Amino acid sequence: MRVAVLGVGVMGADHVARLTSRISGARVSVVNDYITEKAEQIAADIPGCRAIVDPLNAIADPDVDAVVLATPGPTHEKQLLACLEHGKPVLCEKPLTTDIETSLAVVKREAELGKRLIQVGFMRRFDHEYARLKALLDGGELGRALVLHCAHRNPAVPPTFDSAMVVRDSLVHEVDVTRFLFDEEIASIQIVKPAANPAAPQGLADPQIAIMRTVSGKHVDVELFVTTGVAYEVRTEVVAEKGSAMIGLDVGLVRKSAPGHWGGQITPGFRERFGQAYDTEFQRWVDAVRSGFNVDGPTAWDGYAAAAVCEAGVESLDSGLPVEVTMVDRASINGA
Amino acid sequence: MRVAVLGVGVMGADHVARLTSRISGARVSVVNDYITEKAEQIAADIPGCRAIVDPLNAIADPDVDAVVLATPGPTHEKQLLACLEHGKPVLCEKPLTTDIETSLAVVKREAELGKRLIQVGFMRRFDHEYARLKALLDGGELGRALVLHCAHRNPAVPPTFDSAMVVRDSLVHEVDVTRFLFDEEIASIQIVKPAANPAAPQGLADPQIAIMRTVSGKHVDVELFVTTGVAYEVRTEVVAEKGSAMIGLDVGLVRKSAPGHWGGQITPGFRERFGQAYDTEFQRWVDAVRSGFNVDGPTAWDGYAAAAVCEAGVESLDSGLPVEVTMVDRASINGA
Amino acid sequence: MRVAVLGVGVMGADHVARLTSRISGARVSVVNDYITEKAEQIAADIPGCRAIVDPLNAIADPDVDAVVLATPGPTHEKQLLACLEHGKPVLCEKPLTTDIETSLAVVKREAELGKRLIQVGFMRRFDHEYARLKALLDGGELGRALVLHCAHRNPAVPPTFDSAMVVRDSLVHEVDVTRFLFDEEIASIQIVKPAANPAAPQGLADPQIAIMRTVSGKHVDVELFVTTGVAYEVRTEVVAEKGSAMIGLDVGLVRKSAPGHWGGQITPGFRERFGQAYDTEFQRWVDAVRSGFNVDGPTAWDGYAAAAVCEAGVESLDSGLPVEVTMVDRASINGA
Amino acid sequence: MRVAVLGVGVMGADHVARLTSRISGARVSVVNDYITEKAEQIAADIPGCRAIVDPLNAIADPDVDAVVLATPGPTHEKQLLACLEHGKPVLCEKPLTTDIETSLAVVKREAELGKRLIQVGFMRRFDHEYARLKALLDGGELGRALVLHCAHRNPAVPPTFDSAMVVRDSLVHEVDVTRFLFDEEIASIQIVKPAANPAAPQGLADPQIAIMRTVSGKHVDVELFVTTGVAYEVRTEVVAEKGSAMIGLDVGLVRKSAPGHWGGQITPGFRERFGQAYDTEFQRWVDAVRSGFNVDGPTAWDGYAAAAVCEAGVESLDSGLPVEVTMVDRASINGA
Repeated sequence: MRVAVLGVGVMGADHVARLTSRISGARVSVVNDYITEKAEQIAADIPGCRAIVDPLNAIADPDVDAVVLATPGPTHEKQLLACLEHGKPVLCEKPLTTDIETSLAVVKREAELGKRLIQVGFMRRFDHEYARLKALLDGGELGRALVLHCAHRNPAVPPTFDSAMVVRDSLVHEVDVTRFLFDEEIASIQIVKPAANPAAPQGLADPQIAIMRTVSGKHVDVELFVTTGVAYEVRTEVVAEKGSAMIGLDVGLVRKSAPGHWGGQITPGFRERFGQAYDTEFQRWVDAVRSGFNVDGPTAWDGYAAAAVCEAGVESLDSGLPVEVTMVDRASINGA
Repeated sequence: MRVAVLGVGVMGADHVARLTSRISGARVSVVNDYITEKAEQIAADIPGCRAIVDPLNAIADPDVDAVVLATPGPTHEKQLLACLEHGKPVLCEKPLTTDIETSLAVVKREAELGKRLIQVGFMRRFDHEYARLKALLDGGELGRALVLHCAHRNPAVPPTFDSAMVVRDSLVHEVDVTRFLFDEEIASIQIVKPAANPAAPQGLADPQIAIMRTVSGKHVDVELFVTTGVAYEVRTEVVAEKGSAMIGLDVGLVRKSAPGHWGGQITPGFRERFGQAYDTEFQRWVDAVRSGFNVDGPTAWDGYAAAAVCEAGVESLDSGLPVEVTMVDRASINGA
Repeated sequence: MRVAVLGVGVMGADHVARLTSRISGARVSVVNDYITEKAEQIAADIPGCRAIVDPLNAIADPDVDAVVLATPGPTHEKQLLACLEHGKPVLCEKPLTTDIETSLAVVKREAELGKRLIQVGFMRRFDHEYARLKALLDGGELGRALVLHCAHRNPAVPPTFDSAMVVRDSLVHEVDVTRFLFDEEIASIQIVKPAANPAAPQGLADPQIAIMRTVSGKHVDVELFVTTGVAYEVRTEVVAEKGSAMIGLDVGLVRKSAPGHWGGQITPGFRERFGQAYDTEFQRWVDAVRSGFNVDGPTAWDGYAAAAVCEAGVESLDSGLPVEVTMVDRASINGA
Repeated sequence: MRVAVLGVGVMGADHVARLTSRISGARVSVVNDYITEKAEQIAADIPGCRAIVDPLNAIADPDVDAVVLATPGPTHEKQLLACLEHGKPVLCEKPLTTDIETSLAVVKREAELGKRLIQVGFMRRFDHEYARLKALLDGGELGRALVLHCAHRNPAVPPTFDSAMVVRDSLVHEVDVTRFLFDEEIASIQIVKPAANPAAPQGLADPQIAIMRTVSGKHVDVELFVTTGVAYEVRTEVVAEKGSAMIGLDVGLVRKSAPGHWGGQITPGFRERFGQAYDTEFQRWVDAVRSGFNVDGPTAWDGYAAAAVCEAGVESLDSGLPVEVTMVDRASINGA
């Protein structure tokens, strides 16, 4: 699958790297940016990739099967409509568009085509903790959800960050998290502005507290605090009829339920525990071999040493006594 | 990079799936198994993949750039030597071979060739928790390591599992972990056999306690317990001159150090926190588009709904009062 | 110090037991309850204790140095004024009185006397976790507090519990916690009523969300949920300029601060770690001796056995080998 | 109950304070120390307390109902026998005596008297975490215990601390913990000496690893490390047939059991959660009243302020809108 990535700023460049070196079954065939030079530099590093100056031409190009939009929000409407026009699937970083009217226009146009082509980049739905939380709720063990507490904290923001951006760029994630976890729409919202953090840029209302109510009456509150100076913290707690569950405490999903227990799940097997390790092992090995046999993982010597220790271990298994491990001198083997 | 996977039992089949759908830059061109039918079934599902009956032919095949060995241990020696013969990189599941002599022979043969071709499948070195623990030790903040406590627990093992397999198949991982973390060899080993778990198969010494000493005098103890009935638990604690650190408690790396603090690291930024989510988002999107435009992530409607809530939020930011969210009726849009 | 306990329902009876068997330097000399019989039963079990029918007579009694009020709220005003009249210190369970006017009258009367006689039973200020949180805030390391998130959850309430009692009996604790932690008054309050828990008694708004603002603009939100079916959960998180700290997660005080760390404090010494154990050990020993030499703690045999193991341990310290522990047969010692 | 405290070094002085101000039903009537002056200073501060120069006279004194021994170990034998002689209950700090023979002699003498008079100061049995662990094991939910892992870490020891003291003074606690948790004797012990911590005093084997086996074949290992430089850490993990449980991680008792869960218990009710707070509240109030009405807990004003906020809260409960809190100006009340 050949992908055009439009917009290669921080986020877009990340996506180019992702598609090129971590995703199976796709490659970046076209890049575009309003800074032409940047697009050309990136294209030069990727085999079979070209920079195209005009974003609409990039979308239309026959060498493009699908599109990733990482361009500024105000350009999304036109670019999304072009993708729909050409019948090309598009993964669009949030926001869909910058106002309700144009968003609705895009929704309607796609609906008229009767074909699902647009995916919005609400990536938290793919995070393993959110996925576990959603599965826990859908499983019904905690009963119906009643309340959602969220915290969204950034260590710092650029000086240009203003109060409305806290809502549009930060809160927007919790808006989607709410809709994702609860499968219902949000009916009303209130923003509370406490006394501001002295470290916040002049004029920025920070922290902010968003209080939302869903159509069925569920309560949601979100602490938005983008100048904490600490780290990136995203926390989500669902309080339900029969218990509560929290993610984002850096300790996995912690659940509280009757009869008065708190805790989490132990990784059930080696696939869950070490699946990431196997994937990383293989990706690094493939990259090392492809870049000229630069394999740097555990060596044959490591395998030999392990065998020698296990051999002595099996001997001790019988005797119960300490057994010396016998190995040849590594220096005696030229090149090992 | 075209890879031959030899042995497509549980582990080998996992590796085939990994290389086919999660690893970028490689594909499985050849599979082999002593059960010919199984290899043929797997090959049939992968474009451009053949089954080859003889493992040595599979290694030699010109359509093969590199080899993954997931065959039984006793066949490793011959297969590894064949890989070396053909100059093909090989990722060999542990053990290297089943005894010290043949392991040493393989080490020597590779050394004679003067070319690093073999990687042994000690995948824990690629696990993010072990990697963080290693980095913490190498960073020097905790001083020199003195003691290593490990626990290796399985909920159950097949009835054929015997006492020596606890050493060869389970302890072998902690042997490599010890060598990896400490960068030194193990000098002696003692296996202690407490009264056995009644649930353990007749004749199986379980739990076992392995006590090892490294050449510089570091102490290592490992609880090996393969019939816990609970879950898969792998825990590793390093006690060092200036503090200790533990992984495997299902809560990330927990560190203790002066002045009397325990704790972990908050994910510093969105890349660390949500990198996995982005990767999963993209891989699923690519898979969905390739399988016929079956995109099922967040929809344009999700984008529209988020815009509507944020719009109301920005309004409340000014007034401080609750604002109703206004959206069109979804049912009014044909197909949305 | 001779104490009169007025009201010996659940709470008052607890206080009688506390003063009688766990508090040093005080004894209960008088008890009173509107159910005369209950007071008499309790008095009968305590040496030197009488039941007095009229609460005001109990306060006035010359055998009373100080008073504990665990009577119903509506009786507090009259009883408090009587304590002030007689110049007797009183520890009054919350509420002070049941409305603002009478509370203010009590405040003014005590002020006129110019003598501090009344203490209100906001016991959370004496909880070790709240005390640590307060000390952390006052220490200044986290900077000025900005936001306070609280949760107050009960597994169940009596069927007579109504919506206003959630505010008056549950929220009142967080009101005092806010004032205690922040040393300032609360300026406004808003109660949000999400869709109710189906398990809540008919007509009870539960959960409720209280949103408060302090005079300096700090934001406080409190989830009040009294029919969780889980357990008793009281959680408090302060978000401050330079970090945050949370108590009530059943894991001690957890703090987050730059540079991106989360964690707690290890008990610094044996006094902090085992102070409770020493106190309990001594109280049980004193109680056992007083009740007729019924000592049931570790025996002389336990001391002997420990000595035998340590003796063998010291021998192994030299040899490094396992040493058998030699002890006489316990059955050979008549009575041990 | 009148108690003689023999030995008023660090530990003994702690016990004097404990009996005087935190334990109900006992007082210190006699103190003794080989440094006569120290005993006299302490006696001077306690009403009704005398210093007695000779320890045996202190034991025999008619003003003494029971004895606490905090004297050096070598003096214990003679003092214990004197307590037995006079039929006085004695709480003896460990060790019982300093060698097996004298310990056995004490055991036999008490057995001959047929009266339980001696309690040894293994205070961990009274620690709430050990008590919970013991209750969990005795409850049978985890099945029979198989393995015990312990860590005993001190930040530092005096320069006179030698290798045998690690066994006699530190390990002795885990010896008793093992016997307490498992209700059986220890059959053998082995001490392993890893390469020493460079920060340990010259000649001190530190860390040490003790490996013990109980008579029924349970395995126990103890890491003893007394120069960690970090804090006071005491950790105990029991691995049993159906799960494991750990205390001492500064997060309460953490349990792992089928089906693959880890976690702890939420404090079930307000008594468990705030029992300590109530006790502390009352002890401080009693102390404050006794020392001259110096009450410094929550004031009547605190009660008034809470009432004012709750009043406004109840109003908001109806309207759902923010309500201003109305209070009189505190400065207007003379003395409040």
